[in-house]
Amino acid sequence: MTDHNSAIQVTVWNENRHEKKNPKVAAIYPQGIHGAIAAALSAESGLAVRTATLDEPEHGLTQAVLDGTDVLIWWGHMAHHDVRDEIVERVKKRVHAGMGLIVLHSGHYSKIFKALMGTACSLKWRESTDKERLWVVNPAHPVAAGLPGHFELPFEEMYGEPFAIPAPDELVFISWFTGGEVFRSGAAWQRGCGRVFYFRPGHETYPTYHDANIQRVIANAVRWARPAANLADIHPPRPEACAPLEPLPPDPGAAERPAIGHR
Amino acid sequence: MTDHNSAIQVTVWNENRHEKKNPKVAAIYPQGIHGAIAAALSAESGLAVRTATLDEPEHGLTQAVLDGTDVLIWWGHMAHHDVRDEIVERVKKRVHAGMGLIVLHSGHYSKIFKALMGTACSLKWRESTDKERLWVVNPAHPVAAGLPGHFELPFEEMYGEPFAIPAPDELVFISWFTGGEVFRSGAAWQRGCGRVFYFRPGHETYPTYHDANIQRVIANAVRWARPAANLADIHPPRPEACAPLEPLPPDPGAAERPAIGHR
Amino acid sequence: MTDHNSAIQVTVWNENRHEKKNPKVAAIYPQGIHGAIAAALSAESGLAVRTATLDEPEHGLTQAVLDGTDVLIWWGHMAHHDVRDEIVERVKKRVHAGMGLIVLHSGHYSKIFKALMGTACSLKWRESTDKERLWVVNPAHPVAAGLPGHFELPFEEMYGEPFAIPAPDELVFISWFTGGEVFRSGAAWQRGCGRVFYFRPGHETYPTYHDANIQRVIANAVRWARPAANLADIHPPRPEACAPLEPLPPDPGAAERPAIGHR
Amino acid sequence: MTDHNSAIQVTVWNENRHEKKNPKVAAIYPQGIHGAIAAALSAESGLAVRTATLDEPEHGLTQAVLDGTDVLIWWGHMAHHDVRDEIVERVKKRVHAGMGLIVLHSGHYSKIFKALMGTACSLKWRESTDKERLWVVNPAHPVAAGLPGHFELPFEEMYGEPFAIPAPDELVFISWFTGGEVFRSGAAWQRGCGRVFYFRPGHETYPTYHDANIQRVIANAVRWARPAANLADIHPPRPEACAPLEPLPPDPGAAERPAIGHR
Repeated sequence: MTDHNSAIQVTVWNENRHEKKNPKVAAIYPQGIHGAIAAALSAESGLAVRTATLDEPEHGLTQAVLDGTDVLIWWGHMAHHDVRDEIVERVKKRVHAGMGLIVLHSGHYSKIFKALMGTACSLKWRESTDKERLWVVNPAHPVAAGLPGHFELPFEEMYGEPFAIPAPDELVFISWFTGGEVFRSGAAWQRGCGRVFYFRPGHETYPTYHDANIQRVIANAVRWARPAANLADIHPPRPEACAPLEPLPPDPGAAERPAIGHR
Repeated sequence: MTDHNSAIQVTVWNENRHEKKNPKVAAIYPQGIHGAIAAALSAESGLAVRTATLDEPEHGLTQAVLDGTDVLIWWGHMAHHDVRDEIVERVKKRVHAGMGLIVLHSGHYSKIFKALMGTACSLKWRESTDKERLWVVNPAHPVAAGLPGHFELPFEEMYGEPFAIPAPDELVFISWFTGGEVFRSGAAWQRGCGRVFYFRPGHETYPTYHDANIQRVIANAVRWARPAANLADIHPPRPEACAPLEPLPPDPGAAERPAIGHR
Repeated sequence: MTDHNSAIQVTVWNENRHEKKNPKVAAIYPQGIHGAIAAALSAESGLAVRTATLDEPEHGLTQAVLDGTDVLIWWGHMAHHDVRDEIVERVKKRVHAGMGLIVLHSGHYSKIFKALMGTACSLKWRESTDKERLWVVNPAHPVAAGLPGHFELPFEEMYGEPFAIPAPDELVFISWFTGGEVFRSGAAWQRGCGRVFYFRPGHETYPTYHDANIQRVIANAVRWARPAANLADIHPPRPEACAPLEPLPPDPGAAERPAIGHR
Repeated sequence: MTDHNSAIQVTVWNENRHEKKNPKVAAIYPQGIHGAIAAALSAESGLAVRTATLDEPEHGLTQAVLDGTDVLIWWGHMAHHDVRDEIVERVKKRVHAGMGLIVLHSGHYSKIFKALMGTACSLKWRESTDKERLWVVNPAHPVAAGLPGHFELPFEEMYGEPFAIPAPDELVFISWFTGGEVFRSGAAWQRGCGRVFYFRPGHETYPTYHDANIQRVIANAVRWARPAANLADIHPPRPEACAPLEPLPPDPGAAERPAIGHR
């Protein structure tokens, strides 16, 4: 079993393109969105935080990095298609094996999120001056720990329903927007042995990741998404042949039937 | 809205390879597994049934066929990898748009099922002389209509837990096997606007699809999986920009901010 | 199996107290809230509608009435405590046996809804001039059939989160309110063999039940909540002793052990 | 927030009647079933364990005891009806406020479990020589931590489907019985702010609670069911009036409308 006294290994992944192209974004996030999130998480006890970005070799997500990651945070937007399919597959397998995954904002449309959900993950959106108010609909959920009943972001991109996701295993937040929309903005699923949390806020042109409540949610989600146990090998990567535990009835077609494990 | 007095358009898809290679399978299913299932469904009122197989052009699943299909039934096993990715993508989009999908037996490991589930869909298995007994755990579910509390297949391949699927939206059947295993053998999910039902029995070397209870389940599942409504366009295929319904606060950064819909 | 060509037997129950005490309510609903809902449902094909109210003998919900009811609609507010416990128990058993139940607005705090949910069913509220906008979050759900992506009520009582309900089996609507709140306003659960739908709008001082979209939702919910099958006896009312289907191992303590069915 | 370095306060409740009446049960559990469970939990780190039984004043469940309990374990069978309704109500409110509840075996038919589920909780049963084999269907669930893929009890009472419960939020174990039945034997729900786990094994005439795997499950469930946070006041016990956060539209009927909070 995982030693829960050891640090949680967190990798914050960011495509890191807006920061390079848009001075306004660079001004808000001089260390990148990944840098801002990593800095906030590093102030928490019990977390060991590193970052990775799209333009690093293997997008910074080598097998070794993933094997050493308990929880991966994902921010992407304009460059989803530049993420190589084999890296997406590698991340997916690691989630199946137990790694937690926290998908932020426009990551709803990342290859990895769509692959884990099995749906289009489409939504309505508007980049304007909406205020977003997030309501906690499940105050007992660990991701809502320490939060008030609702909290606000003075300006955010709007995302609206219908959000084409599978029904969440757990719904934690619903957002209200000035312009008249609602959104399931904090939702959780299990995929294989891994926990997945989607958290809506975080458009690159707003200082959302400097907000204390947003930082609280992400830190809570990291702790919630940590694998509960040493999960190596518990979900076999392939169908697994097995022998009976109890006596079987006689085989009426024994002569014709191929032996167990023939395929 | 769909006219529910019109026939449900069903397409039964089968890879149809075992039937060609293994005389034992051909003896059990002289018209193929697809033929046996289609014959049983054709005896039901209100269903219009056709078949499609792997080795037809576009696997028999042209866009026109899929657009005219309300519910697709899928049987595959030894040739999952021969199914072309673009056809899988086409089926997936049609499920998202509302088409029902019924995945049978070894279809747990088909590309389309794995793509819709987002998990490995792995399991334990044994091809031997197990008896399978299916228990109805949700007697009120439409897929269980007209069935006894449990029913049996004298010989079937065993599938055992853990079955690496997302938690089903609805669980209808659990199987008991002589050799000591259990399996969630009838499970339902929604993906986009489409309903998906997985039903476990149906190994090619047993006459499972000639069994009246199995035929009852498949016919029930077809009726349950029928789209509830005319679903065209209700799930946008891409994120959708939209204008506010309510007045927005003034824009503090209007000069710098790009217009709505810029991306 | 239920003959789905026969009419669905609907009973609309209302406590009918506001209508008697408050002339404003009586002006909006001269035939009572139950009368307005029944009139709208009677215009639908395939429904046979009757009403029942609190002050009738046995609240109009005799065993015979319930046995002849496929779907019961419930509106109550100021007189929840006047509903007799044995009638609540009778309704609960009938839901368990398959009757659909549609709980409206302040019925969130009725004895029957709380008994079926197992939670406090508390919420925030404000009786003021809020506009309510209902968003369809699951456009494929039968209860949303024929509705636009969102629809509005110009004035309604506000209900806000957290709504202390179990996680819905299915979430269909989320409401947005002018005053800044959100609410899971259309939610579904199964309890025993019966389907339960909670639908938020309907404060007595607004003409909500005269609204065409609201009437559409209620009619859809009636069709969705209809029992799928003849459910008599499928859920035993008590634990049920049963004999083994397979040979059991020898009994090491046969002499001491009481016979099956001893309790 | 709860200090997660402090001990989890566990109360093991038992009706403790079989132990007094049946020498065979007393021989297996000389300190009572509660004593056996408490002894096993006391060997775990971080748990502070006490017991309570039916025949103590207030069944040992005074408000003070419940207020000091993080997780309550419940075993009852022959005396469900002797549990006073006001104590059941007290336990239910405490679960809603965040206390974890672990219901064992025949507790499926206790007043508290039925009240939290909202269903009949009926099932099939047989007291004979069945072997029970429990399969882990969700290996990543914290309640399954440290367990093998399956484990056995050489003799147990059989419980069979359909088990009349709401669809579990999470399903962890499914049991296989020699006599041919299956059962959802480990299932989780949230009710209000509290987590509820039902665990099937534990008939009084078998030494089930001396089994190491069973003890592991119960200890895991205690840790899983611990409240995540200081939950005081987050779920209002009654509907809560609130003022708008945003400007409301003018009130067309201001003169006639009663003020907020009038009821």
